[in-house]
Amino acid sequence: MCDACVLESVKQRMLSRRGLLRAAAVATAGLAAANMGIAPAALAAGHGSVTDLTHELHEDFPTFFGQQQFFREQKFKYSEHKFNLFELRVNEHTGTHVDAPLHFSADGLSVAELPVEKLVVPLCVVDIREKAAADPDAQLTPDDIKAWVAANGEIPENACVAMLSGWADHLGTDKFRNADAAGKLHFPGFHAEAAKLLIEETKAAGIAVDTLSLDHGASPDFATHHAWLPEGRWGLEAAANLDKLPAKGATIVLGAPKHRGGTGGPARVFALV
Amino acid sequence: MCDACVLESVKQRMLSRRGLLRAAAVATAGLAAANMGIAPAALAAGHGSVTDLTHELHEDFPTFFGQQQFFREQKFKYSEHKFNLFELRVNEHTGTHVDAPLHFSADGLSVAELPVEKLVVPLCVVDIREKAAADPDAQLTPDDIKAWVAANGEIPENACVAMLSGWADHLGTDKFRNADAAGKLHFPGFHAEAAKLLIEETKAAGIAVDTLSLDHGASPDFATHHAWLPEGRWGLEAAANLDKLPAKGATIVLGAPKHRGGTGGPARVFALV
Repeated sequence: MCDACVLESVKQRMLSRRGLLRAAAVATAGLAAANMGIAPAALAAGHGSVTDLTHELHEDFPTFFGQQQFFREQKFKYSEHKFNLFELRVNEHTGTHVDAPLHFSADGLSVAELPVEKLVVPLCVVDIREKAAADPDAQLTPDDIKAWVAANGEIPENACVAMLSGWADHLGTDKFRNADAAGKLHFPGFHAEAAKLLIEETKAAGIAVDTLSLDHGASPDFATHHAWLPEGRWGLEAAANLDKLPAKGATIVLGAPKHRGGTGGPARVFALV
Repeated sequence: MCDACVLESVKQRMLSRRGLLRAAAVATAGLAAANMGIAPAALAAGHGSVTDLTHELHEDFPTFFGQQQFFREQKFKYSEHKFNLFELRVNEHTGTHVDAPLHFSADGLSVAELPVEKLVVPLCVVDIREKAAADPDAQLTPDDIKAWVAANGEIPENACVAMLSGWADHLGTDKFRNADAAGKLHFPGFHAEAAKLLIEETKAAGIAVDTLSLDHGASPDFATHHAWLPEGRWGLEAAANLDKLPAKGATIVLGAPKHRGGTGGPARVFALV
């Protein structure tokens, strides 16, 4: 093809529908646009990977109280209405979900009032899998936090400190709730003294667990909930995939729901590494 | 105070409860930890700011169909039970929310099946405020996309292309729905041809609008929903604060809900710049 033919061919291609956007970019933005090309999303976001810390929610997702807490009703159906739509009914504290200060206080912050700068924060993962495997009533203690700090440095401002007990591996089996004959639950949790240590010594914004409660299952009094939440800090329960993350260096994005006056709710949670 | 006294004083402070974590950090992690100090969350996340693209959801939040779609019932009350808890009832397509492919297809991806790598993506903001102010039935057309590309370069892979019509400013007034005497709505939306252009020419993952529907309010046939969603792409409706963002360079984090088989749902959405 001669040069003129090539030029004509290029011009035709640029004018065809399939080339419209490329033509616009090349014609007026020139090399800058050409060099930009198609950017990997991860690069654009300034991080290398996204990890989903959210379990899929469904009717049989285990709950602290043991009763079903998520329901859905189909209101429109594609075969009939040309679109699908469900109405959902859900207890705020179901699935991978947030506890707002208001959950355990008379007038604490609702889930809609949590400041945005406390929802995208550094994530510290404290690994207690070894003792949790040996004892389902294990708790994350002040010593576990001290050991994390000794190995990784101070807890960053606004951090989320997460308990990795390994309990997410039991989801889908009875061991996730691990109820005994009397109905008492047995899974790991945050010790109230560890929560108090974080309150006194750090500016941590949240704590997270891979179990059904911030408190260990056998707790008689929700001591950790009572210690932590009224201090204006948030909790995340039933987090997934904490075992895929480094002890430090990840950023958690807490996609807390934003309904007025809410005490918490199912959340979409990511970690950016 | 003599040097020895100072040292003793420091040692005592380090052994006190309030100094436990700092002592652990300094004692074993040394300078590295000391230099780390308290990191601003934004630095840890590799970005400078977080913008909340989510409107607060409440009972009176306007809906496409005009009826209330969000309800809550208090199940536990702090004054009585020492904790607060609500049960929520919500139509999936309420408030700032996601449309999954399944919303407008027989067997498209549910909201729980959207790949994570398509939820944290580059955000392109297409500003049509001028024509929307002049005409509430304005649509984002292929020409608007071409103009964006001419000014900003190609649409990045997996991008979300957002319509900034300025309509979020009308939330809380009748103009947000802008129903006429016959009940027909009048607000801006994505033209179906613009959606088709993105499908043919780009690998965009989602489109977003600051109004109640991907289609403009007066649309007789949901043409944009039908063109876009069955292609395995997502939509975001009733986005907030798009006017706070640059035309390009932000990353949207779509905190889509993750309930099995869902056609969409209220989402927490952030933009990282």
